[in-house]
Amino acid sequence: MTLAPASVHKLIDENKEKKLDDFFTFLSIPSVSADSVASPQLVKAAEWLTDQAKRAGMEAEIHSTEGHPVVVASTQKRENQPTMLLYGHYDVQPADPLEEWNTPPFTPTVLEGSVYARGADDNKGQLFSILSAIKAWQASGEELPVHLVLVAEGEEEIGSPHFDSWLAKQENAMKVDCGVILDGTQYQRGIPALVYGLRGICYLEIEVHGPSHDLHSGIFGGVVVNPLHALSMLLSRLLTPEGRIAVPHFYDAVRDPEKWEREVLRKLPFDENELAHTLGVQHLTGEQGFTPNERLRFRPTVDVCGMWGGYAGPGAKTVIPSRAGAKISMRLVPDQKPDEIAHLTESYLTSLLPEGVEMKVTRMPGIKPVLVSPESSLFQAFSHSISTHFGRTPAIIRLGGGVGVCEAFQRRLNMKHLLITGWGNPEDRAHSPNERFPLEDLWRGVHTLADVFASYPHFFKEGIDNE
Amino acid sequence: MTLAPASVHKLIDENKEKKLDDFFTFLSIPSVSADSVASPQLVKAAEWLTDQAKRAGMEAEIHSTEGHPVVVASTQKRENQPTMLLYGHYDVQPADPLEEWNTPPFTPTVLEGSVYARGADDNKGQLFSILSAIKAWQASGEELPVHLVLVAEGEEEIGSPHFDSWLAKQENAMKVDCGVILDGTQYQRGIPALVYGLRGICYLEIEVHGPSHDLHSGIFGGVVVNPLHALSMLLSRLLTPEGRIAVPHFYDAVRDPEKWEREVLRKLPFDENELAHTLGVQHLTGEQGFTPNERLRFRPTVDVCGMWGGYAGPGAKTVIPSRAGAKISMRLVPDQKPDEIAHLTESYLTSLLPEGVEMKVTRMPGIKPVLVSPESSLFQAFSHSISTHFGRTPAIIRLGGGVGVCEAFQRRLNMKHLLITGWGNPEDRAHSPNERFPLEDLWRGVHTLADVFASYPHFFKEGIDNE
Repeated sequence: MTLAPASVHKLIDENKEKKLDDFFTFLSIPSVSADSVASPQLVKAAEWLTDQAKRAGMEAEIHSTEGHPVVVASTQKRENQPTMLLYGHYDVQPADPLEEWNTPPFTPTVLEGSVYARGADDNKGQLFSILSAIKAWQASGEELPVHLVLVAEGEEEIGSPHFDSWLAKQENAMKVDCGVILDGTQYQRGIPALVYGLRGICYLEIEVHGPSHDLHSGIFGGVVVNPLHALSMLLSRLLTPEGRIAVPHFYDAVRDPEKWEREVLRKLPFDENELAHTLGVQHLTGEQGFTPNERLRFRPTVDVCGMWGGYAGPGAKTVIPSRAGAKISMRLVPDQKPDEIAHLTESYLTSLLPEGVEMKVTRMPGIKPVLVSPESSLFQAFSHSISTHFGRTPAIIRLGGGVGVCEAFQRRLNMKHLLITGWGNPEDRAHSPNERFPLEDLWRGVHTLADVFASYPHFFKEGIDNE
Repeated sequence: MTLAPASVHKLIDENKEKKLDDFFTFLSIPSVSADSVASPQLVKAAEWLTDQAKRAGMEAEIHSTEGHPVVVASTQKRENQPTMLLYGHYDVQPADPLEEWNTPPFTPTVLEGSVYARGADDNKGQLFSILSAIKAWQASGEELPVHLVLVAEGEEEIGSPHFDSWLAKQENAMKVDCGVILDGTQYQRGIPALVYGLRGICYLEIEVHGPSHDLHSGIFGGVVVNPLHALSMLLSRLLTPEGRIAVPHFYDAVRDPEKWEREVLRKLPFDENELAHTLGVQHLTGEQGFTPNERLRFRPTVDVCGMWGGYAGPGAKTVIPSRAGAKISMRLVPDQKPDEIAHLTESYLTSLLPEGVEMKVTRMPGIKPVLVSPESSLFQAFSHSISTHFGRTPAIIRLGGGVGVCEAFQRRLNMKHLLITGWGNPEDRAHSPNERFPLEDLWRGVHTLADVFASYPHFFKEGIDNE
């Protein structure tokens, strides 16, 4: 298997102080996408990225969108080289609450081997690792054996509202063999992870309409169906007492996890009591027949995300509300389709609806679940390099949540091979005060990428992706 | 049976224009108790009442409370006369929305035989009928055969918050034989009503607590109980599919309506389709085995009055809420007790509560149902006089809603005999724009009261109340 030349790794290890200075400049830019007056800071961050990509020998440009821009940079494309897309984002979460930070969020500070700053891990550190690995290759004078395309957006923390429409315009120009979404974390510190699956989502808003106006519960109680009661009944029937989803045919398209997938999870540490403690519940609950860690990754769910109706103020108001509403999110797994699930759920709720009330269901945009084969040259390359530099083979896992752009990449670029990974750790407080990135993990990541750039084309040529 | 002398009835019919002028002065005072800056207007209305009571030969005084004052007036107490308390209120509902009034709400205007003004029916017109009847007796020179105590409060439209504590102070001084709550209406125009029963109330606030903080439904969906789902399940289990309340022993203390009570209702007109149309529902629903009109008056109910939790804004937010809440009102019938029902309901909900969430139930102040015997001298007197002056015997009925002060009178004054009645009609738009009072009904009410003041002592002495 081909690795990066020793000179590349040597260059990575040289002048770390100087390189971190560059990184800290990036971290000092408060590129908070949720802050409506921070646009100049987002442009500044995009320009920093573009400048650094050029220094790494890439062609780089800033694509404007209706929101914050997308930075696209690519190395020189040579014949017979596979193309790897690397995705990251240069925007960060707001720093609030400021008073809980031990060091200023936009003044990067190294303490006990970690750099503390908003965006240190999520996601500027990951972007820095990409640029560092490419720069080392560039400085070594060796020919980079892979064609790299870096895509960095500025709206990930606000739900990537303009990414899909931007990506639609690249459909023809952007041909890639695989994608690396460098916006994940290790499974837990010391156990790096490669993610091959994500749950999808079907999100519905349900409104139940009863009387045309709110009624006095004394004068009219007893002759009309109460919309809040009817809605409660509907929602209560979404789950069986055993914790399974009661919608007929809901599970028809659910693929059972493979034996190896369950075995991988079984071998990973998972402290039920600790998770229960973190979530503030007595103990974990859920569908029978699956461990909590399996339920989080392999099983669909339904959750009531919000509910409203009638009087919610202090004291007693004796009203029969005219209408009641709820929002429900259903997390989907392969091969469930959001539209089909929405249809099944609507039909089921309609069949349960008591006479005397009407129901309106609004579908919010759904996202298909993502599942790719971990038997690919991409996973081989990452698995091998991670093992070398992190000292253990990565956990090959699925995640319960979504990573917004994955499904867009699949749909727009027909990206069959992708993975989600990252060098930091779940306890690095992404989105919270005192976010950090252990520098040891950061540099391990740079070395890993440097080797991946050599090993991926090697595995790619072996042809496993076409089997 | 003794009636008022013809001279009294003659005096009622004389100088109606002049009397209405006095009434219209009362109606012109915007004594809106809900309006925090209207206090001087409430005092003005109380003073008008006191002045008129004095002109009717009564002793009258204004009792201050922590809120708006209570006016108390009484006729001279002669030996062997029974005491009748007459209750009304001089405060009115706000006039909003003003633009929907065809005439100014505080400029009383007579159109097609009705006076239009806020408070015309509810409740200044009823108070005016009491004063007019007493004045006629006084002017006739005849001796009033009953001892009358008029109690008029100024906070009925805001829930009588200070009435009970005021009444507590009268417990010893105020000895009455019966009470007339002149704050009702006819059953429908042309069918006057005497009310002998009211539903009570048990009002609970329920909070379900799950995780210690809101969770991401993707990352954590599948291992915790969703508080909104748990609460929905609890609420859905309050009713059986047949519309009965599912709380064990809930019906144990429910007294079945007497045969005659059902017969009275069966003979009264009740247009199901019209009511459904008014309420804006396709058709009426509810507990099997009872007609809608029976369900409204004889049967307990449970209603969800409000519910909240999670995200209720626009769009999709994928959150598992930390907590969820609901308010429920249970309308009670004799001989249910609010505390017992609260206890039964709490126990039932606790037994249903799934593992993984906690529940907190808060009891709001309950009100016992009211049921008095219509076989009393009070009902005899009113029934007879109403028959004379309205041209038909009154409907003897129970109401589904509450009249706040009734239970307080029973508890504080040990008032065994009371009734609720009124001269107006359900379609007179109390609480709505263009409130009105047909003058024909008003004067019929004055004649009715004038006779009641004579016939009640007569029936009282026959002793039916003690049988």
